[in-house]
Amino acid sequence: MAKEKRVEQITDMEVDFAQWFTDVCTKAELVDYSGVKGCFILRPYGYAIWENIQKILDGMFKRDGHENVSMPMLIPESLLQKEKDHVEGFAPECAWVTVGGSEELPERLCIRPTSETLFCDHWSHVVHSWRDLPMLYNQWCSVLRWEKTTRPFLRGREFLWQEGHTLHATEEEARNETLHQLEVYADLCENYLAMPVIRGNKTDKEKFAGAVNTYTIECMMHDKKALQSGTSHFFGDGFAKQFGITFTDRDNTQKYPMQTSWGLSTRIIGGIIMTHGDNSGLVLPPRIAPVQVIVVPVAQHKEGVIEKATAVYEAVKAAGFRTRIDASDNSLGWKCAQYEMKGVPLRIEIGPRDIENGVCMAVRRDNGEKITVKLDELTERLPGLLDDVQKGLYIKAKANLDEHTYEAHSIEEAKELQEKNGGFIKTMWCGSLECELAMKEKAGMSSRCIPFDQERLDDVCACCGKPAKHMIYWGVAY
Amino acid sequence: MAKEKRVEQITDMEVDFAQWFTDVCTKAELVDYSGVKGCFILRPYGYAIWENIQKILDGMFKRDGHENVSMPMLIPESLLQKEKDHVEGFAPECAWVTVGGSEELPERLCIRPTSETLFCDHWSHVVHSWRDLPMLYNQWCSVLRWEKTTRPFLRGREFLWQEGHTLHATEEEARNETLHQLEVYADLCENYLAMPVIRGNKTDKEKFAGAVNTYTIECMMHDKKALQSGTSHFFGDGFAKQFGITFTDRDNTQKYPMQTSWGLSTRIIGGIIMTHGDNSGLVLPPRIAPVQVIVVPVAQHKEGVIEKATAVYEAVKAAGFRTRIDASDNSLGWKCAQYEMKGVPLRIEIGPRDIENGVCMAVRRDNGEKITVKLDELTERLPGLLDDVQKGLYIKAKANLDEHTYEAHSIEEAKELQEKNGGFIKTMWCGSLECELAMKEKAGMSSRCIPFDQERLDDVCACCGKPAKHMIYWGVAY
Repeated sequence: MAKEKRVEQITDMEVDFAQWFTDVCTKAELVDYSGVKGCFILRPYGYAIWENIQKILDGMFKRDGHENVSMPMLIPESLLQKEKDHVEGFAPECAWVTVGGSEELPERLCIRPTSETLFCDHWSHVVHSWRDLPMLYNQWCSVLRWEKTTRPFLRGREFLWQEGHTLHATEEEARNETLHQLEVYADLCENYLAMPVIRGNKTDKEKFAGAVNTYTIECMMHDKKALQSGTSHFFGDGFAKQFGITFTDRDNTQKYPMQTSWGLSTRIIGGIIMTHGDNSGLVLPPRIAPVQVIVVPVAQHKEGVIEKATAVYEAVKAAGFRTRIDASDNSLGWKCAQYEMKGVPLRIEIGPRDIENGVCMAVRRDNGEKITVKLDELTERLPGLLDDVQKGLYIKAKANLDEHTYEAHSIEEAKELQEKNGGFIKTMWCGSLECELAMKEKAGMSSRCIPFDQERLDDVCACCGKPAKHMIYWGVAY
Repeated sequence: MAKEKRVEQITDMEVDFAQWFTDVCTKAELVDYSGVKGCFILRPYGYAIWENIQKILDGMFKRDGHENVSMPMLIPESLLQKEKDHVEGFAPECAWVTVGGSEELPERLCIRPTSETLFCDHWSHVVHSWRDLPMLYNQWCSVLRWEKTTRPFLRGREFLWQEGHTLHATEEEARNETLHQLEVYADLCENYLAMPVIRGNKTDKEKFAGAVNTYTIECMMHDKKALQSGTSHFFGDGFAKQFGITFTDRDNTQKYPMQTSWGLSTRIIGGIIMTHGDNSGLVLPPRIAPVQVIVVPVAQHKEGVIEKATAVYEAVKAAGFRTRIDASDNSLGWKCAQYEMKGVPLRIEIGPRDIENGVCMAVRRDNGEKITVKLDELTERLPGLLDDVQKGLYIKAKANLDEHTYEAHSIEEAKELQEKNGGFIKTMWCGSLECELAMKEKAGMSSRCIPFDQERLDDVCACCGKPAKHMIYWGVAY
């Protein structure tokens, strides 16, 4: 007899989105809490999503000539202090090692919050000539920032990420790299994670500590809030000068090289959850789902059902899909709810009557659609079915973004739109910090980016009425 | 005109093996030193070796049903203290975080020296029933141990590794896992790294802090010293009891599960260097070499040479080999020395006369042999040529191990053999700590392992003359 196991309920996302998010993180077995606040455990199912993202990005980085390295996790305080803006940005949120073995250290060491200083120190040893450039490095690691409020994926004291660091002979080459890597992140988001993005420039206020320019991709979550999903920075030669990195150029003169860095973290998994998830739990884009197809036998006590379901599972696996079968003694209802919670894109149900008719039932996680598929056509139809889910998720997320992007011509109007609908508010902007602060103070929104795709909504800044320089996106952000 | 660049010299390995090792690490561009003693930078070429090892091991782990996870890097002091032997073993070499942001922490946090306590804490949350077992987890990360003397790869304060942690319903299953994972390490060493191993049990003195049994694979380096290359531990239910991990078994009783862990680190790269390297530098086994085949044009200023060499390179690449071409303006002599230093298994030289004859010259890194290969047969001959290098390295290393393993029947004899020849000395042993300490004090050797392949060399212990229990290996170890 089937064991009746209760399906765990999650909070309604329209009632309490934050609690819904936490419920999904734990009930879908993505994370567990550790003994240190803000340091989360990525359980196998959560880590497998990260591994799939890693594989895609690592392939893109290597395709473009980048090489992986491993830098130490500890940075001497004096090294962190070499670049003024950088240390001001990061020192307040560092964790400090003060004791090694049983001895007080002569100098405090911080656990890396980011590794620009380590890369620069290394480059100062190994870069001599234009022949050594470009340096196209990346590392996969975890970093630590001592945040006050923490949430799984969205804000961890420790989080996993990749950080790319490159050094170039010319500003043009470095700027191209910065923009190209932003495009790599956009490609990942749009084509693999089904998350449409807004590409743009960060304002001076919002840029990375020590950067000349910070570019960003911004995504809209289901609750209409913004998630900064990946950033790419152009540093000019600021760090190079502080760290004494020079090279002999082809013309035999000594020059400072130009630097970039770019990072994407496990925060993006929070973005996937909040973009696609629903009240039944997680919904995963097929291209990064650890399990793309779950095979569930129906009335499995009947003769031949488990055997046939197993044969289907074996065929799906042999065809190269990430798949599992659940022939456990849990009830059919529990199984369906369980794999919905885990966001498996496609569920294949197969029971006695299906077997008689030579078919199975494919159930889409994104919209619940049930499709009868002939068993002997299943493996050739799977790519199309999974593609439909992938596209369906993108279309839905794009509609959410488009429908909740508004135009405003004054702070008051922007405030009203945000309070009524949430979403992104686009306005013209004069470029001043004062107006950026005014929007924050009066309408509760931060600048998300100055989008690459500019429109001329008005001649004047929505905040001060002075001549406008750019169109800008505002929003409430995670 | 070819630029004459001086080939950097390395120390003669027979004169100063330690300095030779350090020279290879830096001149082959495997590592750089960071600002923190004992925290090394893995440069692209060094990290690429690790990536290849990761790929092989990760595939084996997953083949056997293991899943990757990510645990935090910080462990509260109180958590580390839960298992008595474990904390005694590790606390003296921990690095401690005492300040987070600008505040003193209420409790010190250590950077993980190993993660048993973190896994146990997590399992105490999620393991309830026999249905939850086994837990077959692994993580790729870095750990930190505050060592006094440090050397690249061999002894770092921070080093990269994988740590597998598993939990089982029965002792038999856990013991099988422990031994199976040792076999996985042996497979990696023998069949991919061309390093023959001795498999065995560690003595109680040498086992891991908190383990019931520690199994090890021991390798012999070129200088006849031993390198412990991978270990696998059976913990019984000791940690489970301290961390309150219980499960309801099929018979409805509460039980403590049985635990294992096993680890292999970047130390193995030190082993590869010291097993295969020579006075021209690094020698890499083809199966893990970042570059398996380097294509070098000869007299490249002559018409058609670079074009033909490039075509050869493209063909080798298209056939799936890891390959590069060096058409830079460095001299041929410099290039040959450079790729010898970097240990590239096969160098393909191609010049005007070769092109005329439709051939190229394949030069083996392991023995310098030059083989004329017809250009239209090159890609089909490459697997065989690389296999020859792989086998050649293994045979040479196996001969070194066999020729420098000696039998002794007293401490004096063991001492004399070690002083004269180095290597492993096998003797019979009564099993007492006293005799182990006596061998260390009088002959300067530690026990390496009680090998699985036992021989009966004598009836009595070589140290005390009492009845012998086991044959044991002694050696001077890294």
